[in-house]
Amino acid sequence: MAWFRTLMQLSTIAKQPPFKPNNTVISPHLALISSISHFSTQSQPEVTRHAGLGPTKADEKPRVVVVGSGWAGCRLMKGIDTSLYDVVCVSPRNHMVFTPLLASTCVGTLEFRSVAEPIGRIQPAISREPGSYFFLANCNGVDADDHVVHCQTVTDGEDTLDPWNFKISYDKLVIAAGAEPLTFGIKGVNEHAIFLREVYHAQEIRRKLLLNLMLSDVPGVTEEEKSRLLHCVVVGGGPTGVEFSGELSDFIIRDVHQRYAHVKNYIHVTLIEANEILSSFDDRLRQYATKQLVKSGVRLVRGIVKDVQPQKIILSDGTAVPYGLLVWSTGVGPSPFVKNLELPKAPGGRIGVDEWLRVPSAQDVFSVGDCSGFLESTGKPVLPALAQVAERQGKYLASQLNRIGKAGGGHANTTKDIEVGEQFVYKHLGSMATIGRYKALVDLRQNKEGKGLSMAGFVSWFIWRSAYLTRVLSWRNRFYVAINWATTFVFGRDISRI
Amino acid sequence: MAWFRTLMQLSTIAKQPPFKPNNTVISPHLALISSISHFSTQSQPEVTRHAGLGPTKADEKPRVVVVGSGWAGCRLMKGIDTSLYDVVCVSPRNHMVFTPLLASTCVGTLEFRSVAEPIGRIQPAISREPGSYFFLANCNGVDADDHVVHCQTVTDGEDTLDPWNFKISYDKLVIAAGAEPLTFGIKGVNEHAIFLREVYHAQEIRRKLLLNLMLSDVPGVTEEEKSRLLHCVVVGGGPTGVEFSGELSDFIIRDVHQRYAHVKNYIHVTLIEANEILSSFDDRLRQYATKQLVKSGVRLVRGIVKDVQPQKIILSDGTAVPYGLLVWSTGVGPSPFVKNLELPKAPGGRIGVDEWLRVPSAQDVFSVGDCSGFLESTGKPVLPALAQVAERQGKYLASQLNRIGKAGGGHANTTKDIEVGEQFVYKHLGSMATIGRYKALVDLRQNKEGKGLSMAGFVSWFIWRSAYLTRVLSWRNRFYVAINWATTFVFGRDISRI
Repeated sequence: MAWFRTLMQLSTIAKQPPFKPNNTVISPHLALISSISHFSTQSQPEVTRHAGLGPTKADEKPRVVVVGSGWAGCRLMKGIDTSLYDVVCVSPRNHMVFTPLLASTCVGTLEFRSVAEPIGRIQPAISREPGSYFFLANCNGVDADDHVVHCQTVTDGEDTLDPWNFKISYDKLVIAAGAEPLTFGIKGVNEHAIFLREVYHAQEIRRKLLLNLMLSDVPGVTEEEKSRLLHCVVVGGGPTGVEFSGELSDFIIRDVHQRYAHVKNYIHVTLIEANEILSSFDDRLRQYATKQLVKSGVRLVRGIVKDVQPQKIILSDGTAVPYGLLVWSTGVGPSPFVKNLELPKAPGGRIGVDEWLRVPSAQDVFSVGDCSGFLESTGKPVLPALAQVAERQGKYLASQLNRIGKAGGGHANTTKDIEVGEQFVYKHLGSMATIGRYKALVDLRQNKEGKGLSMAGFVSWFIWRSAYLTRVLSWRNRFYVAINWATTFVFGRDISRI
Repeated sequence: MAWFRTLMQLSTIAKQPPFKPNNTVISPHLALISSISHFSTQSQPEVTRHAGLGPTKADEKPRVVVVGSGWAGCRLMKGIDTSLYDVVCVSPRNHMVFTPLLASTCVGTLEFRSVAEPIGRIQPAISREPGSYFFLANCNGVDADDHVVHCQTVTDGEDTLDPWNFKISYDKLVIAAGAEPLTFGIKGVNEHAIFLREVYHAQEIRRKLLLNLMLSDVPGVTEEEKSRLLHCVVVGGGPTGVEFSGELSDFIIRDVHQRYAHVKNYIHVTLIEANEILSSFDDRLRQYATKQLVKSGVRLVRGIVKDVQPQKIILSDGTAVPYGLLVWSTGVGPSPFVKNLELPKAPGGRIGVDEWLRVPSAQDVFSVGDCSGFLESTGKPVLPALAQVAERQGKYLASQLNRIGKAGGGHANTTKDIEVGEQFVYKHLGSMATIGRYKALVDLRQNKEGKGLSMAGFVSWFIWRSAYLTRVLSWRNRFYVAINWATTFVFGRDISRI
């Protein structure tokens, strides 16, 4: 019965009273003291539990709370000096998505994990330091007067736990919650189209594409259904839409023709854009992109989508376009969370910040990335929703916070007498977009009217790939991206539908 | 309006009448003739459509229909001479799962795609030859008199298509549909436990494990909930259960302790088995395995599960065991498809076959792998449900079919005068199981009473890894398995929850 004794021990452990310290790095005695000041766990697990991290004490490290785990938030966390601050990240996603390479994962040029970087790898203190945490949760409110954020956990139903609420006190708050895809109120977009912002979007696209390729080969399918199933429609001609169309046509030419020989003549890509594709790029580059896309089989359609139905979209002139796969990438706008925040707003509904990326009316609150924009009073334009902007802002704010922390202003309401430092100035380093196999556009002009080198073709493709490769944050993922590219080149893309 | 002309062309294509040939490898004229003989597509898409592949003609290549895409079916397809036969595979899964390595993917030692081999890579004729196909469908009946199988497509709801029925005529039919996990009628197993047979099972386990690790660190969770969330229970002490427990404890020691420092003392693995673990292995090896598992922190519990509830299981003596993750691997039994087939059965309910793996009462029907067993009349025992057996049977049957095809017996009802050839004889090459980091058991005895080398420890771990590496079918996946092992060794496992 030695087996059962073990199990009994087990049940005993499970029944120990709450309030046991969970800090294991420092000695049990110290842990108990510090953990009680941090956690005030309720003993009755109700639907709404209000527990969380209380305010830090003067002799403790100040706490930076980062809401979001995109480019801005992650770059900030990477740069934060963890000897000065404890870092707490709140996000429904435990990794950062390397968005510029996401389109490549939809067809298997790259693998999903190669473009996802766990936050614990970006800022190791979060998984090791006793006062730093990652919380899988959505932030649903900010109480700027009390220096508290309200959060709700993200769970997966009865087999785990029901979601519950908790609060976190902050010394500094960085809102980097990102933006949401724009649907312009068009009916059916959320139900039938797939966005291209998260890894699960790319997974859904890949699964659906492979499903449609297989279904169109099964006996009993009509010619009409076959054409529909294999019609991939992309709405939105910005860099994401163009890159995805390019990857898709590359997949068709290189892989579908070999491995789905029965249906290869039925598959087509249509890119629908209301205005011009790649409108932010130089005219010459835009023409080059158009020519290359058409050459690789992408149909460019100028049109406005009016309605999205299960198997077809309706354009504003009444044309019905049947589709098997519909990808929506028409830019981003403020999320409901940002809209509901009672903070000053910039033009376009983003959180308004001053030249130092501070939210003026709320002490110790900052905002970076796609969710924020310069206030009208700064006289500066709202910056575009680009990874480049977010990354630069995250880096800038990390060094600002480090400077403040070193000067002794890390704790809540203690920054008053500290110098404000240099303003954030954005210098555009150029735009890049790939348009399929060994072709990319690099626009190095600083603005639409400016001058600068504009390249296209193999050389720019090479620059593009290398530039991104060195920006993938960890060595592990740099290595996997290189390996993925090499195997795609040698063996073709993987078509297992898993 | 050049944009719109393109779109109009598109709509025209979509409206072309059915019956357009989809064979593109041969000339359009020939394609039309052959495709009309193959396809008899109905023009009204109804819920039940009966179309499909009609009988082959005497001057066409005979058709082998393979139901299933596991070890047996895939090994057979790989071995089939496609100059003699057209191959049609029917399966709800377009890839083969390299099952011996599946447990490693649950914790990220290997990636999911490294253990999935697309069928088109196993038998390239399926994606290229005009008469060979892969159909994403379930087989739901066999009409042995008419040489026809009934199938239903696997689809994904309204945005693709509703499922429909179709028929395929065969010259030779190979049933390799595999088996289903045994639940012994215990309530709640299907709802709350996760099996470990498909890639999506491994994906679910990985997602849940990472979710629980994160949830248990969120403020508001009680000590009791934390212990439950991080209690991983494995039911079944066969090779799969033992290997998974080993991988899990390895993940805990190597990765959780580093990256989830706050909760590392709460995570535990319990392996529940009614009898002895690894009962088919040599006594000495079994003792070694027990010692190693206990040493790496796995709790071995002898018990019988009576009831599975959302957050706890009840053992037959009334003990309640709370769990956060429940993996069920108690062996396999016949699937409903096999049970419903009106064919002779072997002891245990499998499809009964003779010494040549033929189903005696049904002309041109064969069965291999976990779904088949020797008929009682053969005097041979039903072979264990092992990859090794399935692989050997697939290989044997491929050469049998090739021999028959060469002798002119490929078409339906033409094998009568052809010599039966050698019987299938199974020679057990030994059993292997890993038990965590750098430890594996290799039992080379041919049966429980036999003698043979039994190894344990690092040497056998190395042999095990190499043996499997060379069996992964494609070079692409061999390469990826090696790369995955190397990066896991250098960087640790990936913890992005995607």
